[in-house]
Amino acid sequence: MVGGGDGAFIGAVHRMAARIDDQWELVAGAFQSDPERSVMFGERLGLEPDRRYRDFASMAASESKRPDRIDAVSIVTPNHQHHTAARAFLDAGIPVICDKPLTTTLKDANDLAHAVEKSRLPFILTHNYSGYPMIRQARAMIEANELGKIRVVQAEYAQDWLATDLGVNKQADWRGDPARAGPGGALGDIATHAFHLSEFVSRLTAESLAADLSSFVSGRKLDDNANILLRFDGGARGMLWASQVASGKANGLTLRIYGEKGGLEWSQETPEQLVFSPLGEPPRTYRRGGPGLAPSAQHATRLPSGHPEGYLEAFAQIYSDAAELVRAHNDKRAPDPLATLAPGVVDGVRGVRFIEAAVASHKHNAAWTRLD
Amino acid sequence: MVGGGDGAFIGAVHRMAARIDDQWELVAGAFQSDPERSVMFGERLGLEPDRRYRDFASMAASESKRPDRIDAVSIVTPNHQHHTAARAFLDAGIPVICDKPLTTTLKDANDLAHAVEKSRLPFILTHNYSGYPMIRQARAMIEANELGKIRVVQAEYAQDWLATDLGVNKQADWRGDPARAGPGGALGDIATHAFHLSEFVSRLTAESLAADLSSFVSGRKLDDNANILLRFDGGARGMLWASQVASGKANGLTLRIYGEKGGLEWSQETPEQLVFSPLGEPPRTYRRGGPGLAPSAQHATRLPSGHPEGYLEAFAQIYSDAAELVRAHNDKRAPDPLATLAPGVVDGVRGVRFIEAAVASHKHNAAWTRLD
Amino acid sequence: MVGGGDGAFIGAVHRMAARIDDQWELVAGAFQSDPERSVMFGERLGLEPDRRYRDFASMAASESKRPDRIDAVSIVTPNHQHHTAARAFLDAGIPVICDKPLTTTLKDANDLAHAVEKSRLPFILTHNYSGYPMIRQARAMIEANELGKIRVVQAEYAQDWLATDLGVNKQADWRGDPARAGPGGALGDIATHAFHLSEFVSRLTAESLAADLSSFVSGRKLDDNANILLRFDGGARGMLWASQVASGKANGLTLRIYGEKGGLEWSQETPEQLVFSPLGEPPRTYRRGGPGLAPSAQHATRLPSGHPEGYLEAFAQIYSDAAELVRAHNDKRAPDPLATLAPGVVDGVRGVRFIEAAVASHKHNAAWTRLD
Amino acid sequence: MVGGGDGAFIGAVHRMAARIDDQWELVAGAFQSDPERSVMFGERLGLEPDRRYRDFASMAASESKRPDRIDAVSIVTPNHQHHTAARAFLDAGIPVICDKPLTTTLKDANDLAHAVEKSRLPFILTHNYSGYPMIRQARAMIEANELGKIRVVQAEYAQDWLATDLGVNKQADWRGDPARAGPGGALGDIATHAFHLSEFVSRLTAESLAADLSSFVSGRKLDDNANILLRFDGGARGMLWASQVASGKANGLTLRIYGEKGGLEWSQETPEQLVFSPLGEPPRTYRRGGPGLAPSAQHATRLPSGHPEGYLEAFAQIYSDAAELVRAHNDKRAPDPLATLAPGVVDGVRGVRFIEAAVASHKHNAAWTRLD
Repeated sequence: MVGGGDGAFIGAVHRMAARIDDQWELVAGAFQSDPERSVMFGERLGLEPDRRYRDFASMAASESKRPDRIDAVSIVTPNHQHHTAARAFLDAGIPVICDKPLTTTLKDANDLAHAVEKSRLPFILTHNYSGYPMIRQARAMIEANELGKIRVVQAEYAQDWLATDLGVNKQADWRGDPARAGPGGALGDIATHAFHLSEFVSRLTAESLAADLSSFVSGRKLDDNANILLRFDGGARGMLWASQVASGKANGLTLRIYGEKGGLEWSQETPEQLVFSPLGEPPRTYRRGGPGLAPSAQHATRLPSGHPEGYLEAFAQIYSDAAELVRAHNDKRAPDPLATLAPGVVDGVRGVRFIEAAVASHKHNAAWTRLD
Repeated sequence: MVGGGDGAFIGAVHRMAARIDDQWELVAGAFQSDPERSVMFGERLGLEPDRRYRDFASMAASESKRPDRIDAVSIVTPNHQHHTAARAFLDAGIPVICDKPLTTTLKDANDLAHAVEKSRLPFILTHNYSGYPMIRQARAMIEANELGKIRVVQAEYAQDWLATDLGVNKQADWRGDPARAGPGGALGDIATHAFHLSEFVSRLTAESLAADLSSFVSGRKLDDNANILLRFDGGARGMLWASQVASGKANGLTLRIYGEKGGLEWSQETPEQLVFSPLGEPPRTYRRGGPGLAPSAQHATRLPSGHPEGYLEAFAQIYSDAAELVRAHNDKRAPDPLATLAPGVVDGVRGVRFIEAAVASHKHNAAWTRLD
Repeated sequence: MVGGGDGAFIGAVHRMAARIDDQWELVAGAFQSDPERSVMFGERLGLEPDRRYRDFASMAASESKRPDRIDAVSIVTPNHQHHTAARAFLDAGIPVICDKPLTTTLKDANDLAHAVEKSRLPFILTHNYSGYPMIRQARAMIEANELGKIRVVQAEYAQDWLATDLGVNKQADWRGDPARAGPGGALGDIATHAFHLSEFVSRLTAESLAADLSSFVSGRKLDDNANILLRFDGGARGMLWASQVASGKANGLTLRIYGEKGGLEWSQETPEQLVFSPLGEPPRTYRRGGPGLAPSAQHATRLPSGHPEGYLEAFAQIYSDAAELVRAHNDKRAPDPLATLAPGVVDGVRGVRFIEAAVASHKHNAAWTRLD
Repeated sequence: MVGGGDGAFIGAVHRMAARIDDQWELVAGAFQSDPERSVMFGERLGLEPDRRYRDFASMAASESKRPDRIDAVSIVTPNHQHHTAARAFLDAGIPVICDKPLTTTLKDANDLAHAVEKSRLPFILTHNYSGYPMIRQARAMIEANELGKIRVVQAEYAQDWLATDLGVNKQADWRGDPARAGPGGALGDIATHAFHLSEFVSRLTAESLAADLSSFVSGRKLDDNANILLRFDGGARGMLWASQVASGKANGLTLRIYGEKGGLEWSQETPEQLVFSPLGEPPRTYRRGGPGLAPSAQHATRLPSGHPEGYLEAFAQIYSDAAELVRAHNDKRAPDPLATLAPGVVDGVRGVRFIEAAVASHKHNAAWTRLD
């Protein structure tokens, strides 16, 4: 693991998620930018002394030469370090699991995409919400044409944890600093998730967007609210709202898609259910672990219906799929097709493009800006 | 009553709503454009023979001369007839209750506004959703500054009854015909309600909008889906989604407002509750008839909490408020201030301006268009 | 109308409900036990002077002789007066609409049943919750065997308005006084509704019960909480909880029925939906006014789906059905079968039997007590 | 681990739960009654060869002598083996984590209680639902007297997976066999959980019960539906419904408690929220990870509000608390008081007593039966 040391949030989440399905063991890491503290943190996690690294460069160099080298590295640093860290491990021949957004510039994102293509190494981007079984169910139903031609895609991701100036706060600080977060605030932190789900589930490609960004809290350098119009290939229309100042919203990611024959609605805070409304029939509530589910949804489930799985289990699914992709790579075989739903570097490039397009649109008073 | 004859939907609703609180009695009407059928319909409703009118012009003329003349006329025709009918009664000195949108052109809307101003007659526009007690509660809480400065306003009104071409259908036909409905489809039929609530509750004024309109059903002349960005005075931002092709949505009008200190969420299909989330505290669910309500919410309620009131009761509230406004006018006294929450001709002008601005914005690829 | 004067709750509800569908007009009444105030109240309601009665006896006598006599009387007094009032009007040949519970003793209930049978007059008991369309839908689905053989019936009716001693309160006072309310507190006031729905929807007959009653508020003479086990014919089992001290519950009437093939769940505070869970399939949410409904549910609806109808509309349905029963009686024809779903005197006898059995069971430490 | 081999459900759950918080490592086990398959299963889990045991007796004997012996054993067999297995490890000086119900007879339960008392070894019973943060929050609020004196406790646990005869099914088979499950069907499998939560949260002790049991599926030897009345010390009254034939219910465990000053409602399928209704105020929704929570609820949480935790995380909490109890035991110090909320052998005895009392009550036609 690279990053995820003292005071980090998402690093600990990655470690829990990786443990649940017993497919990964943490054996090496460079956890903090301060080399001494990085080593100490490795000790606290119980790593062997020679695998508590001072920095990711020495870790990539050293691990690539070990006979028991790591199967993959998990990169959970602030955004601005994703590119160099990922590049170092790819160059060392080591598969990468990387947090989103992929990079802070489209140039870097494309660079990583080329490196992945050239190396043919597995690269997994933790758009973790796509690991939810009912998100995969929604995608499967759309692929099976149960909605008919898609007309409308409504996505939103609303939180309130940045509704005030938090003062000194490790999580808020780097996310609010363009040098470390990149050009997007809520855009990079949460809107990319909503954007990814929109395309992942609808199977459409967004062609252009018009973005009206705000920074409501005084002194904030990046956006904390994004109101975005979307146009998809084939004529579908969408809206995407991302906010970190929506008082009362904890982690309100929702996706609603309407087609000629029916509609689908899902909300991350009640992730176990997916409501399908076939036009002219009573709505049906599909439940994780329950009847009527597609193989891809069943693949992503551990417990019977009614025994709630949540955020960690969806995140674990990305790690389990990653394990299969790495195993298949090592075994020189094709992976289980169901594992290939895990997002990769292409999704990462797409996310960075989305951020850059939204920022560009905003600079031109929400003018339509293309996403290709 | 003018309009609301055979096959009409909203006319029957007005009549039910007017009965509930026993403040109005239907005594005269011109119900259909066909004079014979209009008279027959009046007979069916049990009106006295001399008050079953062939058309609204003769009704206005005749009623204005009767000693027992009507206290007010209720105009429930298709949109294009609102202006001439309303004008006829105003000119005859008779107060008007009119369905929305006020008119099909801004010119006509302004003309009515001037006529109302000149005549000083009560004029009530049935933006019926503003009669819901919890909508009035939301407005009262914002007036009491419980949300602090408003930052974000999210409004939506989604239905699915026009998701397919309905063939010959009296309700769909006039709503889809620019000559009778005006320039807006979903815009005029439902988006105006959402727009009205946005301003009515937030106490903000929308300054400009950017609108991306669609007509998803082939052959349709007017919009059936509207994705709109809003900018309010004081810097608040909003989104408004109106759709009549959202499969599975029956009458999904929702309003969510977020300020510096808290957020409010309300949905018309569960109108009895209003969720208030003060920042940093557990959300509280205010219930109609329950504890903690403002006088304006209590004023609009008939039954104890838990005995659901709904659409007709909210509509009835507009009629009851109208009754008080007419009584006060007749008595030459100031009306109960709580009754003055009923929308009027100014709200009607605002709604028509909203429709025209959205259509204009759309013609310029969703360019920002001012609302003043 | 008999009863429903100053300070009464349910009388005003009856009047609103009777108005909605425009089938009834209030023309006569004896509203209060004090003759002077009764007449004054009639004046306030705008009745003709000769039909503002001093008491129900003179009303029955006088109305029975008028050529324009009332079509039916609505009895909305405290429970102990139902019997004599109803008997007076039945004896005068006038149909009766009576609030529940029918009487305060089984003897009186049987007496009324005999009087109805002998007179062949329409007699409608306002178990108003059975007027909800989705309750009628549930009944229709069970009649169509969509649940298979019924196994479990769970009913509850929980409120909190009597969680404390209310001091002097007109509504609480008579309901807490055995001389006026009869032997049941929550039993008569609300449990009878839940019991009626249990049988009305399930189409089963409860054979015996075991009741554990409590009076939690000190000084209270009647039960304010009832925990009841039920055994139905055919082997189904049930539980019924009625409480007026359940803090936070406004009017929480719910009914859940489970059979071999599926389950149904309905809650009065969200009356527009009925969830049907066919075993082994995703649950379906039936909505009032929406697709898939039985004729009996469609019969009881006024507005399209998503335009909430509520308590008053369900109550209005009982009045509309009553109107059809009275019209058919007057016309000497069979009524519309859909109107015959309105509860009658037999349901009333059953409710009183339920109260008496529960009280008897409680006196024997919740011993099983038969209901026939 | 003892039990949890091929085809077992709960064993795999225990292993996932134990991994999440990284406090336990699985190093030894006897997983199946067939010795060969037990060893093979240990191999599949990657255990060292000398710790893949043929049976629990040899495991207890061997582990107790190792310097690196296990810190605790987790017993996840069918019910009838809990007693002898647990006894074997307790006698060998090894702490025990045991699934519920504790044993199949009260005699065995008491025997274990004595063995625990004598040995002073940690003994944790996996009433896993008590690991939910919002359950602990509910308990803390009642301890803080926010509800006042408790009056009513309503518990239910409804499923539908046994609504039909499942034929040959490993999970259903032993649960339906009195020799392996004990005298309770739904009683032992699920009602004990609801009963435990009732007492755990309310801080009351149930004094007596009246139970009406059913076996709706033909050929079934044990109850599949239990309707139970409860009387608590101090006068509170309760109902407990447990069913495995409630079509449409997946894992519907709910708890509702009403006191003089307020009510609390929680449902396991939406475990992240707890609704608190202070009498006379709007209800407040407490959310895991959100504002206003007690230390015991914060202690049991990993993620911020809105990132759903579920069944596995609640189960993990019991394992984490067990880890602290074992560490404290090994260190001869008092454990963190928050970890002592984990259920123990006393709760286990109480659960067995509940089962036996319910069976006894049922044999006497639901006569009141004492629980002490």
